[in-house]
Amino acid sequence: MPLGERSGDKSESRYCGVETNFSHDMPQLLSNHICGAGFDFVVAQLMDPAYRPSLLQKEGGEYGALPFAGSDLVLSPSQWSSHVVGKVSSWIDLDAEDEILRLDSETTLKQEIAWASHLSLQACLLPAPKGKSCANYARCVNQILQSLNNMQLWLRIPLVKSDEDSTDSNSDQLIDSWEIWNSFRLLCEHHSRLSVALDVMSSLPSPNSLGRWFGESVRAAIVNTDSFLTNTRGYPCLSKRHQNLITGFFNHAVQVVISGKPVHNLPSGNTNLTASQSINNVDGDKRHPLRSYLDYIGYLYQKLDPIPEQERFELGYRDFLQSPLQPLMDNLEAQTYETFEKDTMKYIQYQRAVSKALLDRVPDKEASAITTVLMVVGAGRGPLVRASLQAAEETGRKLKVYAVEKNPNAVVTLHSLVKLEGWESVVTIISCDMRYWKAPEKADILVSELLGSFGDNELSPECLDGAQRFLKPDGISIPSSYTSFIQPVTASKLYNDVKSHKDVIHFETAYVVKFHSIAKLASPQPVFTFTHPNHSTEKSNNRYTKLQFEIPSDTGSAMVHGFAGYFDATLYKDVHLGIEPSTATPNMFSWSV
Amino acid sequence: MPLGERSGDKSESRYCGVETNFSHDMPQLLSNHICGAGFDFVVAQLMDPAYRPSLLQKEGGEYGALPFAGSDLVLSPSQWSSHVVGKVSSWIDLDAEDEILRLDSETTLKQEIAWASHLSLQACLLPAPKGKSCANYARCVNQILQSLNNMQLWLRIPLVKSDEDSTDSNSDQLIDSWEIWNSFRLLCEHHSRLSVALDVMSSLPSPNSLGRWFGESVRAAIVNTDSFLTNTRGYPCLSKRHQNLITGFFNHAVQVVISGKPVHNLPSGNTNLTASQSINNVDGDKRHPLRSYLDYIGYLYQKLDPIPEQERFELGYRDFLQSPLQPLMDNLEAQTYETFEKDTMKYIQYQRAVSKALLDRVPDKEASAITTVLMVVGAGRGPLVRASLQAAEETGRKLKVYAVEKNPNAVVTLHSLVKLEGWESVVTIISCDMRYWKAPEKADILVSELLGSFGDNELSPECLDGAQRFLKPDGISIPSSYTSFIQPVTASKLYNDVKSHKDVIHFETAYVVKFHSIAKLASPQPVFTFTHPNHSTEKSNNRYTKLQFEIPSDTGSAMVHGFAGYFDATLYKDVHLGIEPSTATPNMFSWSV
Repeated sequence: MPLGERSGDKSESRYCGVETNFSHDMPQLLSNHICGAGFDFVVAQLMDPAYRPSLLQKEGGEYGALPFAGSDLVLSPSQWSSHVVGKVSSWIDLDAEDEILRLDSETTLKQEIAWASHLSLQACLLPAPKGKSCANYARCVNQILQSLNNMQLWLRIPLVKSDEDSTDSNSDQLIDSWEIWNSFRLLCEHHSRLSVALDVMSSLPSPNSLGRWFGESVRAAIVNTDSFLTNTRGYPCLSKRHQNLITGFFNHAVQVVISGKPVHNLPSGNTNLTASQSINNVDGDKRHPLRSYLDYIGYLYQKLDPIPEQERFELGYRDFLQSPLQPLMDNLEAQTYETFEKDTMKYIQYQRAVSKALLDRVPDKEASAITTVLMVVGAGRGPLVRASLQAAEETGRKLKVYAVEKNPNAVVTLHSLVKLEGWESVVTIISCDMRYWKAPEKADILVSELLGSFGDNELSPECLDGAQRFLKPDGISIPSSYTSFIQPVTASKLYNDVKSHKDVIHFETAYVVKFHSIAKLASPQPVFTFTHPNHSTEKSNNRYTKLQFEIPSDTGSAMVHGFAGYFDATLYKDVHLGIEPSTATPNMFSWSV
Repeated sequence: MPLGERSGDKSESRYCGVETNFSHDMPQLLSNHICGAGFDFVVAQLMDPAYRPSLLQKEGGEYGALPFAGSDLVLSPSQWSSHVVGKVSSWIDLDAEDEILRLDSETTLKQEIAWASHLSLQACLLPAPKGKSCANYARCVNQILQSLNNMQLWLRIPLVKSDEDSTDSNSDQLIDSWEIWNSFRLLCEHHSRLSVALDVMSSLPSPNSLGRWFGESVRAAIVNTDSFLTNTRGYPCLSKRHQNLITGFFNHAVQVVISGKPVHNLPSGNTNLTASQSINNVDGDKRHPLRSYLDYIGYLYQKLDPIPEQERFELGYRDFLQSPLQPLMDNLEAQTYETFEKDTMKYIQYQRAVSKALLDRVPDKEASAITTVLMVVGAGRGPLVRASLQAAEETGRKLKVYAVEKNPNAVVTLHSLVKLEGWESVVTIISCDMRYWKAPEKADILVSELLGSFGDNELSPECLDGAQRFLKPDGISIPSSYTSFIQPVTASKLYNDVKSHKDVIHFETAYVVKFHSIAKLASPQPVFTFTHPNHSTEKSNNRYTKLQFEIPSDTGSAMVHGFAGYFDATLYKDVHLGIEPSTATPNMFSWSV
């Protein structure tokens, strides 16, 4: 039973699981925890914990069946795949000094995963590496991943990081568990079906340190009952910091799994029951001993705000690589124009910029005498033409507009727009590439919207430099300048998506992405600034720079999978437009990096 | 409005279109044909038919807009993409002698497709090649296909094939339009987004000739009003042969498009109205002039039988490449066993075969004295063990069963089955590969189900030869023999799916496919037969053969994209099992090729 109904949330985080011990009776196990308590799935050990391959051989039981919990027939295929996550025996230690233990561990790991795969389970939980050295464990898991069809493997990692500044210099404490995960996944070649299940403890690392995990492939958060506090009525609850973390998990499709023994004395007084006692009472008054923990997690889920309409629309685009547009090379489609034109906030800013430019250029007393020549370069289906004419009307200035557009399909619409609005006397449509147009006169104002999400990545500088020849020497370019920004991020999912192409060209492509599951590791820094008109003698737009980012000291180590790019543009004087997080124009959605 | 509700039919053939002339007023065109008449889409010319690029240049109209029907804004993006198929100007002739016409044709073709692509239309109809030579037309379309994103191109092809035996030796008539299609698509490198729209005429080629098209990528059947007959009440109807053809199209996701002027004098007497007159009367009594044709097509659609439950289940697997199972190398999953075990018909046949073998081997009077040793090699989760025990019970013979299975995961279930059914005294489970097992005694009967869809393709001969060493010299193998069959087919969709991998290995893979959109070009012929036990001295199972297929003379030319494979197995004496179409066991679904 999902934790609650949250409008628009279709992610996995609606489901809550419970970690269970080995039981020979899987149907009863499911019935207790799912029908009885309301959990959505169990994380269940499938093989008898007493099993050791080496003991079996000594006993000569060569043709016996492996001691799994029941046969595959005890549950239906859909019960297995929807309600059971396999839990690999926690005694295994593939990097043990003891050779028998090491070999037994490898055999058992392979048998258990083969069984889980035979059952078409969605995932298996792998026990946390026993120490810092996990090379053999990772090698073996990597080998298994190569032949695994669809199943996910969740590596259990305790959520701990010692504070280096702490005076407690116990050497055992000086562990950053992220580093164990990082070595393990690097040895598994960043395999896309290897993910993390974080063990949430009663004390949490710093927020910056926790933040790293939101860029990693975390599938589950295993919350031990020990981590819960007790509220005034005796019920379990979580600290504010734990609550924030769980909310973060809900928003990143991470599933919560409750683990451990009940440790709260509930008012109904049934905590003294052992698990096996209460099992026989599920139909009676007695509640499942972990029910109050599940209820609390459900309460946190239900407290979440509904997903706003705009975000719901964007869900499908989150963390999805979109190839950058190449409007200079390809003609945009009608639907692309349609989407861009809906971004009213952008055109309000343009109208404000043109108005200010018109007022600066033509004094009030000459408003009726002077006609300003304004050229829209890259007019598309006409939104900047409309914004410019509205600015002229607003300021009472006379305007002559040239709308230059290279896409003949957009020109069809431009013509029909001009006719429909009766702009024939004011607007001239030029069906031509601005780089080759022979303008009949020079412009006072050049208006364009050629910026990509990273500023210059759609070749705005080159196009505007080319158009500058028909701008008067004292003419104005809107935008007058723009700056690109970058920021290092952890983005495991995006990295794997790019990697799946198995070539360098995809790693060198600047994708457009609606970021969600990333960790921002340091503040953005400005990269390149372009100014228009460009009066410098250096005409090349090639740029090179070197930046140094400093990661907050309490973060710990982190993986930089790539850089997030942004831009900020000055349209005219104080009118700006941009997506750099600290100064972003609100309510805009055209750009994302 | 779809033609009707046919349970389970989600294919495109529910929708019916109408071919229209050029109109400047697209909203009105849509309103007439879709809201007014009930068609689902229009196949509409988008550019003014008077337009010629060469004339435009002479007039110096360099910066004008192209004469398309309205701007992209006259319809919503979803109206464009759901209700409009673009129709490229039919005057274009890219292989014309006249150079101006040829150049104008190429320019216009590119402009029209760019416009249709700008509008995100789902498809564009290309006019039929003007003559037998269409090299430049195909070259140009191939070039366009390389940069086209999602749009389909439908090449119009008249459905004609002259009968070579006919005495009418008019040379113009000696055309097989399939050959035009074949040259065109070969020049376009069998591109997956190039399909056929067949022009259905009043006379039809032979059934064998028509049959070829069901293996090709046919998207639309354009039925001219001329092809309709008149029923006794004056309404349009189709000949029996035309009806069968249209039913075939409905079953192969081909959409019908009505074309041409109304030619029937309807009782209501409104046929004398021209199209433009009736346009103004859609809301009144007057029906759309093509409405009675649409109604007749709808009537044919509604007459179809509902899709049977079993077929509905298989719809998703039709013409879909499934990688062949490799049970010898990989362990099967629980879900695969689950599916196979549901095939009751197969196990009924096995039970019949074992019963007959037991009766032959043990005379009635010795029934209580002799215990037959039966080995199931590849026992899986036990269905053959169960069938054998049931045969023993049915015949009153005593049985000792060894169940040999190499998959340790299936062995878990076997053990639990034996325990559940109380078979411990009769059944011995051997968790071992049959090729390496050291059997403690020899078997009277060896039962296996190792056959792939093509008989030997899952290495049944090799496995059984390996197991033969523990069969008594006079022992019985069930199956005792099997033969593979092949048949040449046209299978355009499958060919393209294999081709998309861009390598040879996929072309050499024997896929498992639920055939639907294929044309069978000749009867199947037997290929290889394997007999067990194999007492021949030639121990190699390598085979080589050469077969000659004869295509019926009235078919015409055809493309062999590959071969369909089948098998027929003799389980024991007259009990057989197989999928070769002429002798197939009914109600079986485990194999498909």
